[in-house]
Amino acid sequence: MQSNERSYGIVTPEDFQFGSPGEGVRLDNGQVFGPVNVRFETYGTLNDSKSNAILVLHAFSGDAHVTGLLSPTDKHEGWWSQMVGPGKAFDTDKYFIICSNVLGGCQGTTGPGSIDPSTGRPYGLTFPVITIHDMVEVQKRLLEHLGIPSLLSVTGGSMGGMQALDWTVSYPDYVRSAVVLASTARLSAQGIAFNAVGRSAIMSDPAWKEGNYYDGPAPARGLATARMIGHITYLSDESMRMKFGRRLQRREAYGYDFADLFEIESYLNYQGDRFVERFDANSYIYLSKAMDYFDLGDRYGGLAQALSRTKAKFLLASFTSDWLFPTYQSKEIVYALMKSDKDVSFTEISCPYGHDSFLLETERQGEIVSSFLDTVNGK
Amino acid sequence: MQSNERSYGIVTPEDFQFGSPGEGVRLDNGQVFGPVNVRFETYGTLNDSKSNAILVLHAFSGDAHVTGLLSPTDKHEGWWSQMVGPGKAFDTDKYFIICSNVLGGCQGTTGPGSIDPSTGRPYGLTFPVITIHDMVEVQKRLLEHLGIPSLLSVTGGSMGGMQALDWTVSYPDYVRSAVVLASTARLSAQGIAFNAVGRSAIMSDPAWKEGNYYDGPAPARGLATARMIGHITYLSDESMRMKFGRRLQRREAYGYDFADLFEIESYLNYQGDRFVERFDANSYIYLSKAMDYFDLGDRYGGLAQALSRTKAKFLLASFTSDWLFPTYQSKEIVYALMKSDKDVSFTEISCPYGHDSFLLETERQGEIVSSFLDTVNGK
Repeated sequence: MQSNERSYGIVTPEDFQFGSPGEGVRLDNGQVFGPVNVRFETYGTLNDSKSNAILVLHAFSGDAHVTGLLSPTDKHEGWWSQMVGPGKAFDTDKYFIICSNVLGGCQGTTGPGSIDPSTGRPYGLTFPVITIHDMVEVQKRLLEHLGIPSLLSVTGGSMGGMQALDWTVSYPDYVRSAVVLASTARLSAQGIAFNAVGRSAIMSDPAWKEGNYYDGPAPARGLATARMIGHITYLSDESMRMKFGRRLQRREAYGYDFADLFEIESYLNYQGDRFVERFDANSYIYLSKAMDYFDLGDRYGGLAQALSRTKAKFLLASFTSDWLFPTYQSKEIVYALMKSDKDVSFTEISCPYGHDSFLLETERQGEIVSSFLDTVNGK
Repeated sequence: MQSNERSYGIVTPEDFQFGSPGEGVRLDNGQVFGPVNVRFETYGTLNDSKSNAILVLHAFSGDAHVTGLLSPTDKHEGWWSQMVGPGKAFDTDKYFIICSNVLGGCQGTTGPGSIDPSTGRPYGLTFPVITIHDMVEVQKRLLEHLGIPSLLSVTGGSMGGMQALDWTVSYPDYVRSAVVLASTARLSAQGIAFNAVGRSAIMSDPAWKEGNYYDGPAPARGLATARMIGHITYLSDESMRMKFGRRLQRREAYGYDFADLFEIESYLNYQGDRFVERFDANSYIYLSKAMDYFDLGDRYGGLAQALSRTKAKFLLASFTSDWLFPTYQSKEIVYALMKSDKDVSFTEISCPYGHDSFLLETERQGEIVSSFLDTVNGK
């Protein structure tokens, strides 16, 4: 056993750059976009046959730091630490885990807040309108750069699941398996609706200035409101009742004045304010738009046709209390895969935490993922 | 048969005023508040025994105009025309229907946008923080003014149902029956959460100015965002999929630019903008706060204790696709009534339209209500 430091590989974020103005990644809008910086992290060790690489795709507000505290120099918990690490479902003792911040994001990878080299100023709304598939194209470049010949698995929940699905269809020969959690083959009208209101809240903030706010105050109130809306959709009626109920913050009885705040209200205010410190409002706009566009079957004449191209083994899981990406949306993918006789497993996990269950439920989910990966890995 | 004009009674809004500064209605906050203007409408004719009066309570954004087009001078459709009118479930040929705009509203009854006689300026945030019970107290004054000795029924959906429930507990001897639709005995944490975000959107609009915007532009963007959020919660995943799906507005294919609008997005923008024309942002704040406070059992030591006071026959209905006031919340009321051996009927109506079902589903709902009222009326 090597030292912790060495055993779990690089836990400091790294950067990979490619392209230049007019040269880079071909986007769905037709534009060839560059330069692109990709912020990524890796955990574990790539084996000699280079057959143990797993690409983890983050959800809407995630980043490259999928797990943390694996070495003394790594001070921050990751967004999926309970699922990724030594002895965990995505076992860093066995697998080489790669996670990168998505194109359009604001956690190190090029996005609307990055400097446009042709102007020397942040892109703002001149940043191209991107798609889930565009994110995948950038990830492909990263994997080529890392010399990964194929992936043991791609995995992600929510927007991460969308990317995983796109991977299986866009690069069928490159992907041996996919673990798709709390996701969908196309965003529902209700999902689009919530995203649209979030964008509207940001764009209604006078500080937004058509996206040109980088030399002044950010549209903090608008972004906080958008996050509060999003946050409600990630939870469930049941989890909010269990966690907050109708309790007041700092008061025993109603005061019948505007100082009366319910705990859930205070919690949402807090979540909104914290989010503003770490997220860029324009990234909110671009990434939510990318989710709205996502329709896996669209360019292949239907979902079944798209999925008929895949060669991966699939594991899908949905969660009983997830009303944003409900079970029927996972089942739709499962049925389409079965139509083409693909190898697919599906579980609906009973869990009260709503859409966030894929981040919070790790016991049952962990077991299922772990044994699925063993199977794919030929154990 | 008398002329239409006469047969359906007064269809022009009327006003009833009571109180003066320091004299009026005793509110839950302890304050005695006045003067109060109550905007109300009546339909049908009060019979000689004064035993056919039904009080209809409107929901969050409703008004006194419950039904319309009943006479040549009545030019506007009402918010519940399909349920109230000659031959309808709430039959204006049989019953004397009364509907008033709630305290705190902005459709004629005194609210935060009304002039405070002590300052000559709109109340704004100096308006008292009101409750569902305060609304009921004002309605009681109106009914006394109209000389109604008791009510054949009180009815309402959503916030209207909250008022109906409060009526049965606060005035058990006055209310012979209650029809409570898509409602709850206490607003859920999720319901509070959505209201809180709506208020946050309004209060984040610089035009809101701590509620003192009446001599300038209204906080239109903030109010529109609040309404968009509300509107999503009134619909359902299924109804949005059926009505809008993933269709684009005015385009066949994605343009990958910000002119790409999905139909649902365009619809919500439209609903937000229209709402601003007819609703006051401060009323949004006050009425949503009143809903947050609503907890029927709170002052009686529990829901069962509160409902044990009632003497009314109850009809409750919930709707399968209503995720804002889901069926379990109606059932909670039903079980509490059954505990005290009260006379209660309950139906869950299968309907895809979400919380708005009580406004839109009129066939099955109409039949059930109609026969319930016949029973109460001794037919």
